[in-house]
Amino acid sequence: MTLRVGLIGAGAMGAGHATTLATGVPAARVVAVHDPDAGRAEAVAGPLGARPAATPGELIADADAVIVASPDFTHADLVLACLAAGRPVLCEKPLAETAADARKIVEAEQAGGRRLVQVGFMRRYDPGYLALKAVLAAGVAGEPLIVHNVHRNPVNHTSVSDAGIVTGSMIHELDVVPWLLDTEVTSIRIESPRLTGVKDPQLAWLRLASGAMATIEVFVNAGYGYDVRCEVVGSRGTAQLPARPGVVTSVDGATGTPVGRDFVAHFTDAYRAELTRWAAAAADGTAEGPSAWDGYVANAVAEAGIASLASGTTQPVAPGDRPAFYR
Amino acid sequence: MTLRVGLIGAGAMGAGHATTLATGVPAARVVAVHDPDAGRAEAVAGPLGARPAATPGELIADADAVIVASPDFTHADLVLACLAAGRPVLCEKPLAETAADARKIVEAEQAGGRRLVQVGFMRRYDPGYLALKAVLAAGVAGEPLIVHNVHRNPVNHTSVSDAGIVTGSMIHELDVVPWLLDTEVTSIRIESPRLTGVKDPQLAWLRLASGAMATIEVFVNAGYGYDVRCEVVGSRGTAQLPARPGVVTSVDGATGTPVGRDFVAHFTDAYRAELTRWAAAAADGTAEGPSAWDGYVANAVAEAGIASLASGTTQPVAPGDRPAFYR
Amino acid sequence: MTLRVGLIGAGAMGAGHATTLATGVPAARVVAVHDPDAGRAEAVAGPLGARPAATPGELIADADAVIVASPDFTHADLVLACLAAGRPVLCEKPLAETAADARKIVEAEQAGGRRLVQVGFMRRYDPGYLALKAVLAAGVAGEPLIVHNVHRNPVNHTSVSDAGIVTGSMIHELDVVPWLLDTEVTSIRIESPRLTGVKDPQLAWLRLASGAMATIEVFVNAGYGYDVRCEVVGSRGTAQLPARPGVVTSVDGATGTPVGRDFVAHFTDAYRAELTRWAAAAADGTAEGPSAWDGYVANAVAEAGIASLASGTTQPVAPGDRPAFYR
Amino acid sequence: MTLRVGLIGAGAMGAGHATTLATGVPAARVVAVHDPDAGRAEAVAGPLGARPAATPGELIADADAVIVASPDFTHADLVLACLAAGRPVLCEKPLAETAADARKIVEAEQAGGRRLVQVGFMRRYDPGYLALKAVLAAGVAGEPLIVHNVHRNPVNHTSVSDAGIVTGSMIHELDVVPWLLDTEVTSIRIESPRLTGVKDPQLAWLRLASGAMATIEVFVNAGYGYDVRCEVVGSRGTAQLPARPGVVTSVDGATGTPVGRDFVAHFTDAYRAELTRWAAAAADGTAEGPSAWDGYVANAVAEAGIASLASGTTQPVAPGDRPAFYR
Repeated sequence: MTLRVGLIGAGAMGAGHATTLATGVPAARVVAVHDPDAGRAEAVAGPLGARPAATPGELIADADAVIVASPDFTHADLVLACLAAGRPVLCEKPLAETAADARKIVEAEQAGGRRLVQVGFMRRYDPGYLALKAVLAAGVAGEPLIVHNVHRNPVNHTSVSDAGIVTGSMIHELDVVPWLLDTEVTSIRIESPRLTGVKDPQLAWLRLASGAMATIEVFVNAGYGYDVRCEVVGSRGTAQLPARPGVVTSVDGATGTPVGRDFVAHFTDAYRAELTRWAAAAADGTAEGPSAWDGYVANAVAEAGIASLASGTTQPVAPGDRPAFYR
Repeated sequence: MTLRVGLIGAGAMGAGHATTLATGVPAARVVAVHDPDAGRAEAVAGPLGARPAATPGELIADADAVIVASPDFTHADLVLACLAAGRPVLCEKPLAETAADARKIVEAEQAGGRRLVQVGFMRRYDPGYLALKAVLAAGVAGEPLIVHNVHRNPVNHTSVSDAGIVTGSMIHELDVVPWLLDTEVTSIRIESPRLTGVKDPQLAWLRLASGAMATIEVFVNAGYGYDVRCEVVGSRGTAQLPARPGVVTSVDGATGTPVGRDFVAHFTDAYRAELTRWAAAAADGTAEGPSAWDGYVANAVAEAGIASLASGTTQPVAPGDRPAFYR
Repeated sequence: MTLRVGLIGAGAMGAGHATTLATGVPAARVVAVHDPDAGRAEAVAGPLGARPAATPGELIADADAVIVASPDFTHADLVLACLAAGRPVLCEKPLAETAADARKIVEAEQAGGRRLVQVGFMRRYDPGYLALKAVLAAGVAGEPLIVHNVHRNPVNHTSVSDAGIVTGSMIHELDVVPWLLDTEVTSIRIESPRLTGVKDPQLAWLRLASGAMATIEVFVNAGYGYDVRCEVVGSRGTAQLPARPGVVTSVDGATGTPVGRDFVAHFTDAYRAELTRWAAAAADGTAEGPSAWDGYVANAVAEAGIASLASGTTQPVAPGDRPAFYR
Repeated sequence: MTLRVGLIGAGAMGAGHATTLATGVPAARVVAVHDPDAGRAEAVAGPLGARPAATPGELIADADAVIVASPDFTHADLVLACLAAGRPVLCEKPLAETAADARKIVEAEQAGGRRLVQVGFMRRYDPGYLALKAVLAAGVAGEPLIVHNVHRNPVNHTSVSDAGIVTGSMIHELDVVPWLLDTEVTSIRIESPRLTGVKDPQLAWLRLASGAMATIEVFVNAGYGYDVRCEVVGSRGTAQLPARPGVVTSVDGATGTPVGRDFVAHFTDAYRAELTRWAAAAADGTAEGPSAWDGYVANAVAEAGIASLASGTTQPVAPGDRPAFYR
């Protein structure tokens, strides 16, 4: 039985998920697409043999499971609607615009008694991050003490405010670092060399419940390309995310390799794995991987980070204890 | 319409193709599996919801298209049977055990008037080789003069004779080098440092119609891992196949990264792309990419190479002109 | 005329300088060695054909120029003695134990009217750092915004306190970062993941007068080896200190290269260039490169850093304006 | 006692040696320089405080030891003159233009009863090659089976004939490969993709007495830079010469590092070590490292290679047994 998927949001992210499902995930197919821009919905739906859906509600009612890839401000309500209808849902990050809204989803899902929500933190499915996590779990680097992260985009048209850079870009590190070390963030401090205008790049320090610290550089207008790095420094040594070189050329007095510009291409294996695993869980009427709780916590850390950036002070992060439901 | 695929051969290669189709190629599914070892056929067929087929003939008759992943000595006859039945067929390399047998397939396919045969030279679908070919085509390195190739396995249980190393392993380079440079091999010389026992490693020199030369090292018992490299030296500079590093660790006085042992894992993207493209062509009742002619030429070059290795002389390669049918 | 050098301190650093002069710097030779441990002085002096000197004063009186490589607490007084005698002096870092003591040297040197003091910040002579500075000066990376620094030792027996790690190890970065960007440090914040025991590793954030920020990780017991990295992130891209790989081996499923354990071996070219340049300046009766002012400023930044680490607050750095004498 | 060196030849190579001695080798100094172009001799001699010498004979008579860095055709006679005068001599490669001439030097030196000749195969002093040799000697890669060599210049104005490329450039590999494996060359085959004009690049295969083979690519007009690589493939794994990266920049969609154009800069540490070791041996009235016998053997291998390139056949190399004098 192929999972019948309804897709909400036919922008770049939604279209990317549609393509990934159609070309790389045999277990699922998109049957309906909703977008406020009906032409855009049609453009994605047509080549897939799917139908445009006039409203999210109609789409949710009909599909076996739902992907939410619409603008951030719509996420929380759409996920709540999926929960109300009992539909497994993959929601792009962030889960909500505020921790308070994300918390409502956590409560609603628990009330329903079954995990239905998966948040689109696709790095948890990236072969590189998984290999890094396995190396750490094997103790190769000893006890993790510091995690250095770099996250650069060539140019960014969506993360255009101080807060937007945190919730739209840094949130990936805010989720993936505690996941890597199997711990929680306890405080955050963000500063920027930019004292006027948009604060880009940003530098963050996290403290983690395990005792480790993390550094994060996010630079959404770094110019040269899309570049994601992670090095964990432990008591015995270090472990780094695999590099992703292209063809190496030696010409004109230099040896070099291209750096891509596109995060979708960079994480293409991660997206395919994420959708494959989600489709399998959704077919069983549930979800797996990054949960609504994880989405809520990431929102809480991001909010503390935004407060830190505005105030110049280190901010504690205390989202409360992880419910047994999410362990 | 999903392509209904019959799989002949349920060994490592056949099982790998079955898994790739089931998990990564929505456009096709395996419906029947034949293997002389019925238990092995059942083991592959069962989890896919496919049926074991008692004979290749029965399987060919029923399927939309066929994958031949059985032992090398069976390839030619099975492909001829597919041609007789008008079935698109993906045949693992080598196409035949001898150039003469491969030539029969070329004749039969031309007689049928339509391309049905695709040979499993999956490197032509590898993102790395494709990127390298694009860089060369763009003229970045100038006029190609030399292609250096390295092809190492940790240990090899199937290429166990001097000739077997050529037809089972080096044949990948014998196909991919002229493809990269869009030319033909005109002579080959193979020597080995090993003067007694199995001649492993082997060193080859190719001359190409374009005027370039190629060097090939094949070492099927290199011990440390599976390693494939290619560097094209041109009149303006060089271009190299992308490297494939894993997690980089710095511990105990050394910085390092794992080297895999498994050629299927190394070329997993290539196999998926190969099968995706083949399924699309087969659905149209035809084939694409490496043709029966390419398979025949590779056999001819390999035969000349084996003669060179035995005689200590450079051997010309003259398979005849590529028929218009295959241009 | 070969410069006649007196060496104070026959420990590892002093012996290293003696060897470098004897084997790589034709323009200078060690004629006298003082060490409170007379046997150690003799051991260094003997093979060089130099004589042991009973007191620093006697040595200073006789030599053309002096190298101070004795324990940190002796530096300031010895440099003042050299100034009093009008001797060019190369003083190992730190110039003094406190900024106040370093300031006295600055005042004394200015009173003498001529630069005589060079501080042993040898990274300024390292071919890698010089190449990085040249790339930045050429504008390749655009306007520098962030400088990421890593400084790891395998194990450290001399930097054994929270403050000692700052003045003994991090001080290299505290000097080299503003030198790289041709600016000054305006504030510093240091934290550590270690909340009990010696605070190692340490993480620092600097703000610089140019508007850039810098991150520094110092980890003096990192276990795996001696590792120094520096990446400058600018508005157009990034530039990194050259790597220093050794022989690359591929064995047993991994490709790797050794990481050295010895900072002297790592910076051997830097030390030789430092001594060569110092000898040339000293032969002219003066000094060049890192000045007493630079040494004083590094002490001031280090003191602020130590205060930050103890207090948990960001500390301003305000050493005063650079005197015209030192421009 | 500083060794008083006479330098014959004030071209790029001679001037380079003069600078290396003056700036990096305290144990020796150039006292006289001869060049048929008196102005050029003066230009090198002047800044060193050395005197121009009117004839080689006068220079040889006066100096403690001699460096021969004049054109290749003069080497053999000048070395014989040094032997006649009992002077230690460092002769740039090749030792002679022909193996027969080199053999005369071997005979003359043996007749004198003492090693006086060192040939300028500076790679034997390169830290990278020495580290590679140590790794091999430790058995890390197992039994060496293949040595892959690459030797590229950006452009070459001196190796301008088929034979000149062998004796002027490839000769470095012809010496260093058997030295690395502690064996001898037994046959050589050279071909080129270029069938008309100057045969550049050239590909060589060596067979060695140990049973190993070697491949060599020499390309003296490779355009992009000066690049020297060596990988030894053994029965357990491989070992490669260290790479020499510069500053790594990430700008404009690419990450890269410069490739130098200058072989003197590339091997600067090797030249300094070579001269340091030579000066020490010469001060003892003898020589060390690459001997006249090694120079003769390299000439013999080169001659066989040139014959191979012209004839299209593999050529045996049989210089005779190494005399006890040279063991």
